[in-house]
Amino acid sequence: MICLKKIRVGFFKCGNIGASPLCELLLDELARREDVEIRTVTTGSKMRVEDVEEALPKIFEFNPDLLILISPNPSISGPARARELVSNRGLMGIVISDRPGKRIKDEIEKQGLGYIIIMGDPLIGARGEFLDPTEMAIFNSNIIKVLAITGVYRIVCYEIDRVIHALKAGIRPTLPRLVIDTETIRDNSDLKNPYAKAKAMAAYELTKTVAAINQRACFIEKERAKYIPLVACSHEIAQVAAKLAEEAREIEKYSDTLVRRPHSKDGKPRIKSKLMSQPSLDEETYQKWLGAS
Amino acid sequence: MICLKKIRVGFFKCGNIGASPLCELLLDELARREDVEIRTVTTGSKMRVEDVEEALPKIFEFNPDLLILISPNPSISGPARARELVSNRGLMGIVISDRPGKRIKDEIEKQGLGYIIIMGDPLIGARGEFLDPTEMAIFNSNIIKVLAITGVYRIVCYEIDRVIHALKAGIRPTLPRLVIDTETIRDNSDLKNPYAKAKAMAAYELTKTVAAINQRACFIEKERAKYIPLVACSHEIAQVAAKLAEEAREIEKYSDTLVRRPHSKDGKPRIKSKLMSQPSLDEETYQKWLGAS
Amino acid sequence: MICLKKIRVGFFKCGNIGASPLCELLLDELARREDVEIRTVTTGSKMRVEDVEEALPKIFEFNPDLLILISPNPSISGPARARELVSNRGLMGIVISDRPGKRIKDEIEKQGLGYIIIMGDPLIGARGEFLDPTEMAIFNSNIIKVLAITGVYRIVCYEIDRVIHALKAGIRPTLPRLVIDTETIRDNSDLKNPYAKAKAMAAYELTKTVAAINQRACFIEKERAKYIPLVACSHEIAQVAAKLAEEAREIEKYSDTLVRRPHSKDGKPRIKSKLMSQPSLDEETYQKWLGAS
Amino acid sequence: MICLKKIRVGFFKCGNIGASPLCELLLDELARREDVEIRTVTTGSKMRVEDVEEALPKIFEFNPDLLILISPNPSISGPARARELVSNRGLMGIVISDRPGKRIKDEIEKQGLGYIIIMGDPLIGARGEFLDPTEMAIFNSNIIKVLAITGVYRIVCYEIDRVIHALKAGIRPTLPRLVIDTETIRDNSDLKNPYAKAKAMAAYELTKTVAAINQRACFIEKERAKYIPLVACSHEIAQVAAKLAEEAREIEKYSDTLVRRPHSKDGKPRIKSKLMSQPSLDEETYQKWLGAS
Amino acid sequence: MICLKKIRVGFFKCGNIGASPLCELLLDELARREDVEIRTVTTGSKMRVEDVEEALPKIFEFNPDLLILISPNPSISGPARARELVSNRGLMGIVISDRPGKRIKDEIEKQGLGYIIIMGDPLIGARGEFLDPTEMAIFNSNIIKVLAITGVYRIVCYEIDRVIHALKAGIRPTLPRLVIDTETIRDNSDLKNPYAKAKAMAAYELTKTVAAINQRACFIEKERAKYIPLVACSHEIAQVAAKLAEEAREIEKYSDTLVRRPHSKDGKPRIKSKLMSQPSLDEETYQKWLGAS
Amino acid sequence: MICLKKIRVGFFKCGNIGASPLCELLLDELARREDVEIRTVTTGSKMRVEDVEEALPKIFEFNPDLLILISPNPSISGPARARELVSNRGLMGIVISDRPGKRIKDEIEKQGLGYIIIMGDPLIGARGEFLDPTEMAIFNSNIIKVLAITGVYRIVCYEIDRVIHALKAGIRPTLPRLVIDTETIRDNSDLKNPYAKAKAMAAYELTKTVAAINQRACFIEKERAKYIPLVACSHEIAQVAAKLAEEAREIEKYSDTLVRRPHSKDGKPRIKSKLMSQPSLDEETYQKWLGAS
Repeated sequence: MICLKKIRVGFFKCGNIGASPLCELLLDELARREDVEIRTVTTGSKMRVEDVEEALPKIFEFNPDLLILISPNPSISGPARARELVSNRGLMGIVISDRPGKRIKDEIEKQGLGYIIIMGDPLIGARGEFLDPTEMAIFNSNIIKVLAITGVYRIVCYEIDRVIHALKAGIRPTLPRLVIDTETIRDNSDLKNPYAKAKAMAAYELTKTVAAINQRACFIEKERAKYIPLVACSHEIAQVAAKLAEEAREIEKYSDTLVRRPHSKDGKPRIKSKLMSQPSLDEETYQKWLGAS
Repeated sequence: MICLKKIRVGFFKCGNIGASPLCELLLDELARREDVEIRTVTTGSKMRVEDVEEALPKIFEFNPDLLILISPNPSISGPARARELVSNRGLMGIVISDRPGKRIKDEIEKQGLGYIIIMGDPLIGARGEFLDPTEMAIFNSNIIKVLAITGVYRIVCYEIDRVIHALKAGIRPTLPRLVIDTETIRDNSDLKNPYAKAKAMAAYELTKTVAAINQRACFIEKERAKYIPLVACSHEIAQVAAKLAEEAREIEKYSDTLVRRPHSKDGKPRIKSKLMSQPSLDEETYQKWLGAS
Repeated sequence: MICLKKIRVGFFKCGNIGASPLCELLLDELARREDVEIRTVTTGSKMRVEDVEEALPKIFEFNPDLLILISPNPSISGPARARELVSNRGLMGIVISDRPGKRIKDEIEKQGLGYIIIMGDPLIGARGEFLDPTEMAIFNSNIIKVLAITGVYRIVCYEIDRVIHALKAGIRPTLPRLVIDTETIRDNSDLKNPYAKAKAMAAYELTKTVAAINQRACFIEKERAKYIPLVACSHEIAQVAAKLAEEAREIEKYSDTLVRRPHSKDGKPRIKSKLMSQPSLDEETYQKWLGAS
Repeated sequence: MICLKKIRVGFFKCGNIGASPLCELLLDELARREDVEIRTVTTGSKMRVEDVEEALPKIFEFNPDLLILISPNPSISGPARARELVSNRGLMGIVISDRPGKRIKDEIEKQGLGYIIIMGDPLIGARGEFLDPTEMAIFNSNIIKVLAITGVYRIVCYEIDRVIHALKAGIRPTLPRLVIDTETIRDNSDLKNPYAKAKAMAAYELTKTVAAINQRACFIEKERAKYIPLVACSHEIAQVAAKLAEEAREIEKYSDTLVRRPHSKDGKPRIKSKLMSQPSLDEETYQKWLGAS
Repeated sequence: MICLKKIRVGFFKCGNIGASPLCELLLDELARREDVEIRTVTTGSKMRVEDVEEALPKIFEFNPDLLILISPNPSISGPARARELVSNRGLMGIVISDRPGKRIKDEIEKQGLGYIIIMGDPLIGARGEFLDPTEMAIFNSNIIKVLAITGVYRIVCYEIDRVIHALKAGIRPTLPRLVIDTETIRDNSDLKNPYAKAKAMAAYELTKTVAAINQRACFIEKERAKYIPLVACSHEIAQVAAKLAEEAREIEKYSDTLVRRPHSKDGKPRIKSKLMSQPSLDEETYQKWLGAS
Repeated sequence: MICLKKIRVGFFKCGNIGASPLCELLLDELARREDVEIRTVTTGSKMRVEDVEEALPKIFEFNPDLLILISPNPSISGPARARELVSNRGLMGIVISDRPGKRIKDEIEKQGLGYIIIMGDPLIGARGEFLDPTEMAIFNSNIIKVLAITGVYRIVCYEIDRVIHALKAGIRPTLPRLVIDTETIRDNSDLKNPYAKAKAMAAYELTKTVAAINQRACFIEKERAKYIPLVACSHEIAQVAAKLAEEAREIEKYSDTLVRRPHSKDGKPRIKSKLMSQPSLDEETYQKWLGAS
């Protein structure tokens, strides 16, 4: 069933959200997968139309079988141009973005693209009196921890892997149309302890609160005395969210029920829970992928 | 003194270290810098020669004035090929890498490249019974926090900015030749409280311990019953290191002495410490850059 | 200026919010104030019209100079009836309530009553599979801590004291028309350290998040498998909010700048900050009260 | 077996102890109980004879089937007068109080009243240089958390419910004669993990230590330089006690064995432990109540 | 003023209290003091008369100028015999012991010996179902931390050094007659922040609570089901006390005011507070020693 | 099988390592063992040849059946002299020491002595600007906690007990030749949860890091500005190591699987795990001892 051809997966990132920095690494965390070839092109934190138009073609030249577009707010001009170009080219594409993306999901669908909207991937507190490279990195560290532990990354990874495996099997994949909200965490969690799950959900709710506050702080409040405390406040919440998520994961460690899903060399899903045990093929997931795609 | 031309900075990443995921974002954390153009190309977690040979030219096509190569162990074949290609092309290049890079720093220098070796950027616990996408992301989250708070990212950013500003001023920059060890943290810290600095140094020492344990766990121990506890142990240390770093930063918050260095629109260095104050031009640093380069 | 007559302050509570359990105690925390007489009547957790009609007259019989009505959602029938009865009687009354009260603040004003709407005083996770007496008490403990440390209680106390002092001075008091949101915390905080204030604001934002989740969990989700994780999640956030608030207060302790405002025997405002010092008359506040009322 | 008549439960509070603020809410935490009618009258923090004589009759007017008197030290004149008035009236009454109550328990019994003496419900650090409304509320928050998690509130609630159910069943109830000390916690805990129980007991011991220190600080030490550190010290212990109690509860969450006892609509005892399960009738307790009363 | 002769200080320990394990090390923490010669003899955890009679002479043979006797409860036969033998021999001796020692302090004084009674040096939870070597060591670790941070060790060290310096100066020293209770901590603390001091006092109060509980658990409760929870509870408190003490010390670090008193080579007292500064001679203390002795 | 004669165990300590302060207490934590007689002689923190030569004979006079020599670095002159004297005397001796001891283990073996080298028993930060009696005690407290919880003390105790029981049984014991490194912890842990074990191993790795840093700080760095931050950094790591170890132990409490090994009166090994259960004879260990010795 495994095709010999490697699936080529391209990532194009313009601007940054919590899902961006590690996204392509999620697919091949052990750097040993033989069924995929991964390439990424990014424009740094900039997301203007000209950045997109200059940089996006480089990822096209790589001939991806699947192209992942990751950016904040996909409705603004740069990311919108990226969607348009990918759609026009008829490429199999998935948009990964944050809350504002939800408003244009029908538009994305009409463009023939898939989407994964991460409601809890928050805007950073981008105020020049507050945000410097160090603060930016710490914020990303906290959000990464939340998105990892709550299972958001796992869901993203699952969807991309599902498409990859369909492509490998020669099946036309259904592209993901997914809005990841707290309910998604609740209904798709690998956390076995119900309080761990509640804490993970809480962490995710907190990142949504961060997003709302930063929206206010970055776009509404005009006075320094008003917006600085707000961005400082939102980043404190991000820190607390990371701690809460960590606590959720600790609970699973305490009962040795932490689920791990390391990729196999051939990319098939594997699963394990007891730390000292070996992962085994996750046949159920694998069949679902082939069936559902 | 500011030239009108934007400096084009390319990043090429193959494989991943803690310095990789956010590196280009550090230069323009507020996404408003008008003096630089940033592009990145990566090969995901893979770092074979063929990955490099296929992907590296894409970043050349972008015509970078400065090219940053980031990878684990720059002596192995893929990253070595990347160095060779960049050197041959006569590009201004800086290698950013982890501890094994220290052994070949003279070789890098001979290739006409700069280097920043981060001794505390540790190997991940890449064992297939342990590392899955979630664990990988959490580990990176922890290392990012340590590298941010200890000031490693600031030092990296400082060095790249220094070169950029020299290029803008039409001065031939001295490329960095820097090994960042605990002593570097000690002697270049923005942390005002001496105990905060001691805790930051401690966090950095811990990531070095992580590196040493994972070296053992990934390359020396052969039995599952022996290496699983070791990788689990090293990731616990990474978690503790992140907490310790966070504690260091909290101390500075407690006395409102936390130094922030947000970039200005024209890329010049700025600095501030009291949260509610405004950043001002860091004239001293700026003159040092122009003088030292 | 001090009249000899004691001001009689009545409290009527039906149902419970975070502001309820300690409200009257805030006015006389040292139990030695000689200028006020305080009486409270409550209906427990029930807030039906019949409860109000039976119990409210008892507080009238006490002849209060000022009557504080505290309940959740003042628009529902029981609390609405209470407002009506107080208004009809021409009593000087202040409604203290939670977020839903904001929608009817004009109506309250038309009734000649004052109001203090506490946006961050959240609905409890009142689901029968989750909430028992112990969980209820713990939740209240957490919310009390947040409302205390963020300064919400201080603001409530300030407003009531302001009215009391006007009455004592024979001035017709302006009743409070106040919505306490995060911005109120920001602009009226006794916390001297800006990060302490940011953490306090964060704690308050969290209680608002708790409110929103419990709204969903109690009134929208119908299936047990869906609402139980939500109420558990919201109470985890309440716990974290309390910790964050506590952290804010600790910061002030660390620099010995914690402001304290113990009441004097004659009810005049006093203030101090260093732990070992004595409180002194807060003349500024006192004059503002007499002037502003 | 259920009588149609609602049992009317009155609460009279003068002064405040940790058991006071939420006491009546414990009986009907979900605000849906149909078998009881609850009314409370309080005198705020004051507990003089005149306060009692003015306010107590209001609760009599409500015709309670059962009257709960809650105050600090029931031997001082105000609370003593309350006991006397209730006893003279022949009302079924229960005194809930703190450690000093133990000395007069025989006297209370002679008055025909029940009692619940909570040895770990500590005196507050009522010194005018230290205690302000905010500190008072935080202290109560901490004590509430300890009394809730250690099971003290559950025991209080159990005893009142027991009497209510006897009254409903037309049985003459035995009034509680109970001194709640650490041994009571030990022998009546819902905490399943023995270390959780040990931590809960530790938290309770700490509140007893708080009581002893505040006794010294409020009534023995005369110099400011001596008593301020003592009250500050005791409130630190209260904070630590709350954390320790919280830790005890977390342990139960970690193994999903946290017992919950939500009231049913008809007031019958229910019990559950796994978070996602439904509570069921606690038949054993119910029969004990009917038999024991 | 310094005599050339080294002062010989002997320690005799029978049984163990928190002051025992490190006591002689306190005098020469840098192992470079040239004015004292230190020798210790111990009988392990045993403290019978025969142990004392066999072992004590060994320390006599060392010809100590000053002999420190450390044991639990100095009134029981073994330690009592030790006191008697030292007193008979006319040696300059100081008894260091725990709470039960307070009852016989007059007797000790009559024997011509000094004493330091440490009220917060608690009995261990010596029950055979609970205490094993690991638990014993952890308990000691916690108590050591409390005694160190609260300043108890500093006071003990101060008193012994005072006597040593008097001996060196040829002055007849006044032997210490000291009961170290919470008030001693309060009135002799090196902690500059008043909340740090309050937390340290709280930690010390907690060790006193530990002592009281273990007294009950070891000597009064007879049933396993009763005493095991009590010893477990007391050791939880010891753990919390250590954390609280640590928190106190952290506060001083946060403001870089932590006082350090490293011994000089000639044994004279030195003092410093800022971490990066050098210690200087503590002339005030030194003169007090020479004057007071 | 039990001989009637008590085994006499002598301890000679010169200088101090983490294994020193409680070592003899580990053998008889309940002070009720009837099969051993324990005596200790120490020279305080000094470890010169003259200290050894004066003090060691006192422990010889006690006629020990087994003599334990504990000191830092056993290759330097004082401890070396101690080994020589013991070896010459033909006494059954065991050297317990820290990392530097590893280099001379063959030499120790040749002297006919056993050894236990504790790789994670770190050098203290012995710099005169940093280390005072309080800091020294806190450091020891932290190391003691790590050595206790990781099981190092248990292993030390096991080895000594093994020799004692052989002597009691009239069997010639094999002296221990043991280097305790992280792998020893991993392969001999009583911690049941694999994450608890990973955390314990992490704690031990940290103490090894402490050792390495203090080595640098005490013997290599010459400038105050360089070594003070290093010793401060290492002691921060020691504190974190203690916390991590504590966390490991808490995990075992959370599942009530904490293993305890209290000594019986006759010294035979006993074992238990559930808190409320009774210890039983550890027959397996006992037979191993008799067989292996």
